[in-house]
Amino acid sequence: MVIVLKPKTQREVINSLIKTIEKKGITVHETIGENYSILGLVGDTSQLNQEQFEAHDCVERAMRVQHPFKLANKLFHPEDTIIQVDDVKIGGGNKAIIAGPCSIESEEQLLTIAKAVKESGANILRGGAYKPRSSPYSFQGLGEEGLKLLKKAKELTGLPTITEAICLDTIEKVAEYADFIQIGARNMQNFALLKKAGQYNKPVVLKRGLSATMEEWLMSAEYIMAEGNHQVILCERGIRTFETYTRNTLDLSAVPVVKEMSHLPVIVDPSHAAGKWSMVEPLSKAAIAVGADGLMIEVHHEPECALSDGAQSLKPEKFNKLMKKLNAMAL
Amino acid sequence: MVIVLKPKTQREVINSLIKTIEKKGITVHETIGENYSILGLVGDTSQLNQEQFEAHDCVERAMRVQHPFKLANKLFHPEDTIIQVDDVKIGGGNKAIIAGPCSIESEEQLLTIAKAVKESGANILRGGAYKPRSSPYSFQGLGEEGLKLLKKAKELTGLPTITEAICLDTIEKVAEYADFIQIGARNMQNFALLKKAGQYNKPVVLKRGLSATMEEWLMSAEYIMAEGNHQVILCERGIRTFETYTRNTLDLSAVPVVKEMSHLPVIVDPSHAAGKWSMVEPLSKAAIAVGADGLMIEVHHEPECALSDGAQSLKPEKFNKLMKKLNAMAL
Amino acid sequence: MVIVLKPKTQREVINSLIKTIEKKGITVHETIGENYSILGLVGDTSQLNQEQFEAHDCVERAMRVQHPFKLANKLFHPEDTIIQVDDVKIGGGNKAIIAGPCSIESEEQLLTIAKAVKESGANILRGGAYKPRSSPYSFQGLGEEGLKLLKKAKELTGLPTITEAICLDTIEKVAEYADFIQIGARNMQNFALLKKAGQYNKPVVLKRGLSATMEEWLMSAEYIMAEGNHQVILCERGIRTFETYTRNTLDLSAVPVVKEMSHLPVIVDPSHAAGKWSMVEPLSKAAIAVGADGLMIEVHHEPECALSDGAQSLKPEKFNKLMKKLNAMAL
Amino acid sequence: MVIVLKPKTQREVINSLIKTIEKKGITVHETIGENYSILGLVGDTSQLNQEQFEAHDCVERAMRVQHPFKLANKLFHPEDTIIQVDDVKIGGGNKAIIAGPCSIESEEQLLTIAKAVKESGANILRGGAYKPRSSPYSFQGLGEEGLKLLKKAKELTGLPTITEAICLDTIEKVAEYADFIQIGARNMQNFALLKKAGQYNKPVVLKRGLSATMEEWLMSAEYIMAEGNHQVILCERGIRTFETYTRNTLDLSAVPVVKEMSHLPVIVDPSHAAGKWSMVEPLSKAAIAVGADGLMIEVHHEPECALSDGAQSLKPEKFNKLMKKLNAMAL
Repeated sequence: MVIVLKPKTQREVINSLIKTIEKKGITVHETIGENYSILGLVGDTSQLNQEQFEAHDCVERAMRVQHPFKLANKLFHPEDTIIQVDDVKIGGGNKAIIAGPCSIESEEQLLTIAKAVKESGANILRGGAYKPRSSPYSFQGLGEEGLKLLKKAKELTGLPTITEAICLDTIEKVAEYADFIQIGARNMQNFALLKKAGQYNKPVVLKRGLSATMEEWLMSAEYIMAEGNHQVILCERGIRTFETYTRNTLDLSAVPVVKEMSHLPVIVDPSHAAGKWSMVEPLSKAAIAVGADGLMIEVHHEPECALSDGAQSLKPEKFNKLMKKLNAMAL
Repeated sequence: MVIVLKPKTQREVINSLIKTIEKKGITVHETIGENYSILGLVGDTSQLNQEQFEAHDCVERAMRVQHPFKLANKLFHPEDTIIQVDDVKIGGGNKAIIAGPCSIESEEQLLTIAKAVKESGANILRGGAYKPRSSPYSFQGLGEEGLKLLKKAKELTGLPTITEAICLDTIEKVAEYADFIQIGARNMQNFALLKKAGQYNKPVVLKRGLSATMEEWLMSAEYIMAEGNHQVILCERGIRTFETYTRNTLDLSAVPVVKEMSHLPVIVDPSHAAGKWSMVEPLSKAAIAVGADGLMIEVHHEPECALSDGAQSLKPEKFNKLMKKLNAMAL
Repeated sequence: MVIVLKPKTQREVINSLIKTIEKKGITVHETIGENYSILGLVGDTSQLNQEQFEAHDCVERAMRVQHPFKLANKLFHPEDTIIQVDDVKIGGGNKAIIAGPCSIESEEQLLTIAKAVKESGANILRGGAYKPRSSPYSFQGLGEEGLKLLKKAKELTGLPTITEAICLDTIEKVAEYADFIQIGARNMQNFALLKKAGQYNKPVVLKRGLSATMEEWLMSAEYIMAEGNHQVILCERGIRTFETYTRNTLDLSAVPVVKEMSHLPVIVDPSHAAGKWSMVEPLSKAAIAVGADGLMIEVHHEPECALSDGAQSLKPEKFNKLMKKLNAMAL
Repeated sequence: MVIVLKPKTQREVINSLIKTIEKKGITVHETIGENYSILGLVGDTSQLNQEQFEAHDCVERAMRVQHPFKLANKLFHPEDTIIQVDDVKIGGGNKAIIAGPCSIESEEQLLTIAKAVKESGANILRGGAYKPRSSPYSFQGLGEEGLKLLKKAKELTGLPTITEAICLDTIEKVAEYADFIQIGARNMQNFALLKKAGQYNKPVVLKRGLSATMEEWLMSAEYIMAEGNHQVILCERGIRTFETYTRNTLDLSAVPVVKEMSHLPVIVDPSHAAGKWSMVEPLSKAAIAVGADGLMIEVHHEPECALSDGAQSLKPEKFNKLMKKLNAMAL
């Protein structure tokens, strides 16, 4: 950690601050500049509270040099994490294609779509049973009934499944029926839910929050990992910016950046970012080209009747064409 | 709702779309332009799913004309909501000054601060027992022990109290010990928690999410109200923008804007927005001048030792001076 | 244009507004809803001033249905624009690889880099002679001396050249020496400069402003085109968001979105967006995959000595490797 | 400046970097941490190029400790700058109320408004003669004809005047006719224009760019000051964020923050930020309460006919009421 002192701070004030820091077992190196002096702190600075330092009248600001996450940090775990469910591997060069409807609506709907995406080459089936909706008057999902259908779809297709856990009361059911637990963007800093997800022996797909920095995203992964579950997959799904033509701005730079900082796999959800099906193909190709470990794509055979996210869902034929193009890119 | 059709859409396609809409009991008015035609929908459009329309190949976009919230909507409830706990009223010209430490750390700490803020004129005491922290390694709050201290502080000072509920497992306790339930910015779209908060007969202070639009914020209030609890107070606490000198950008325009849209009281938290105590005084004065129904301010007698948010906490003497200035503004 | 009226607007006020609009030769269709009534305006609404309508007390808001740009609008010019200089074509399936140093620093520097990028397959040479720098104390470019070196580099390599025009006083010189005129992100709404650029018979590369919406970007292209110069190439170079790990957030969605709205070619500058050379390769591949008509990449043989933007410049060997990978993607 | 080295950087690489730095007359202090080592640079670091350091393979990042602006820096000029034109002072406790139409449209329009705002207590008259418009098809201002009307309005009312200079070709005329030169938000980083504005002996009002950080804004002030003109007034006018209900988000925190960093006066333009006249009163009061040195407000007697910005213009009666309320706040 580096502490920048305010100009003209008196010697005794600096000495007193240094003593406070040294009491915590930290060594302090002082660099005296013409206007600003700085303190370089050496030792286990992860225990230090940056805000306490900034509360001192003499401190201009305190800056961390090292990322605050450890278990998710590539510095300490240089090897790529590979996550496996059944025969499907994600990370370390293995790519996941997760496809399916936004919401599970009926047995016929889910099975129709499941069969179609499997035939086109998807290797994981998605489908929401508990839906986080911005309006209390919108369809909230089929609940456990949906989870049962998801299980049936797996029996039929053999595809491992993923569905979202939206609260402490339902995550147990999600873990019981599905192979992957999804944590949605709006819950990325629902710390109680993250801790709970860390207590299952199931991979967790953690979506990036709409306004989460990459460091905050990795800190949320750290919450899950700190509970003992190291199977975390990060999912970029667009951030909120001033641009409103696309629903969110897909931040594809996040893929190589996060891969520099962490050993965890990173996948991309182009459907939610764009909010428009015509954007899904170009953004999927870009996501693969930028180095993502997989894609999560919404597919619906009757998007005009979908109970959620119809506008961004690909029809099965379009998904099939997309898969062919991705394969041609040597996916 | 207004639906804009793509240029050159064929007559029979338009007719078919109109029939689909009319089947839902909606009347459709068509305006045929040179390039774009539009459909004006009249009737109970709140049941319509905007995204289903946008999934039609012939639809350029669908736009809501009316706000999607009802119970929170000033159009249907023109009178200002006034919320009362003990003798303290908020809204309709009555202002709340909520003050106290970020985290409850000990009996001595809480009581010292509680007495000080009461003497300076605060009328509600804040203090966190369950703390949502971006790092799993940071202090997570005293839990129920903290709630007991909060109750003791109320017995001593007579001030009604507010504390944050961070999950379904602990909200019951929060409702048991405190007078106001706070929902934090990171949980603004934790819909399960909102529904639960809507089941208590206690006022809820709902902080605006870091990247929540005003409409989304009001939809989250609607979640609470739809469960039967109409005592919602909105709290602006800064949004995330490109500017990093302040921790967040306090959006004071939100106060008059939300008051045009809704009858609910709106208060302002300048401490979290700025992240720096020296900004708290000017922003507090601005919040009152812009028309806020109250303030939520962090106060700590030893900010350099605070277990959270030290940098943004006012010392009691500074809080006291601020209160005098606010009173001079005819608070 | 659609005008939404405030609830409870009186009949005679609506009638008077309709008369005002009809006087401009516009036909008005009224749709009367339960709470909100809307007016649909048919005719040449491009002459209408949206803000004048919103100044009426009875108007909630006015919304344009049609994009405000005409010459840049795909609706009226469905064919892709192809721009050609010497043998190099851009657009309609033809891709430009623009490479070279951020700033022209010396004859040796420019010629070394120019030869290297040509050998690797670049087809246009970039190099700044007038540099827009955020600090008045930073290197401001060699000026006309730099333009002369750029011309020399063209004679040597045969590559057409591009350089930035930063003001009315120097654009004449830029147009004299270079093949393409570049308008930088910070000048995207320098309307006097845009008008002037529209008076040359040279292609203009128009970078997107840091906080420009896609519509504003296309309106700036419209400024150039309205003066008679239809040879405009759009360049996405990252937008400003809350994320600070990358210098800007490259908005690759902008490529397919703008291509839906406009017939103009769109290229991508990954160097400025990322601000870090290690991001340039993955982002370049993603830009090609998403459908960009070309790339603009900074190359420097001694980035540690570069007078500007060293951190984001590729060394010639790395640029060479990148070009091989792009060719393998069937660039 | 602080340089953070990459983990595991070899000793000889560090030594070589230190030598390079010391050759520039800078002293280097090394702090060796467990994972990251840092270099603290002492001396005239303002001449150093941060990006050159980041181009070194061994450098993780380089961070400035000191603000890069000097003439605008409060550290070196602790006294508030006070700017005076005729009898009007701005800064150091003196407040300017700048009011008038967005665009000058006719003699009758300008004189009507000028008389009205003077009577209500405004002390500076605004009015645009050259208008930066996002569409080439919108009204572009009366040009020099407008400047002549502005001069006439000054003769009539005695109010000093301000008008915007949008390019190098017209700034001379602006400086000839008006008392203050305004640089608009979209030209905040039009460095050629800033340099030119620095060559006049007239105060310059510099609006903050839509996505400019406070540091960039002060660097633009530095451009003007570096040319010899130290009479710069900063004007906050809203930044671009994800929130679209208001046209821009007025960043009132910028007032106290900039006052901590600089000695220059800071005023606020609530009209452009909100884009809606009903927001102007509450935001004006908040701006005064937060400590602004003045306001810039658009006033029009017939906003429904205004050629620009009608929706955000106050009618003279409303402006008069606002002035009374501001005076009651002991303006």
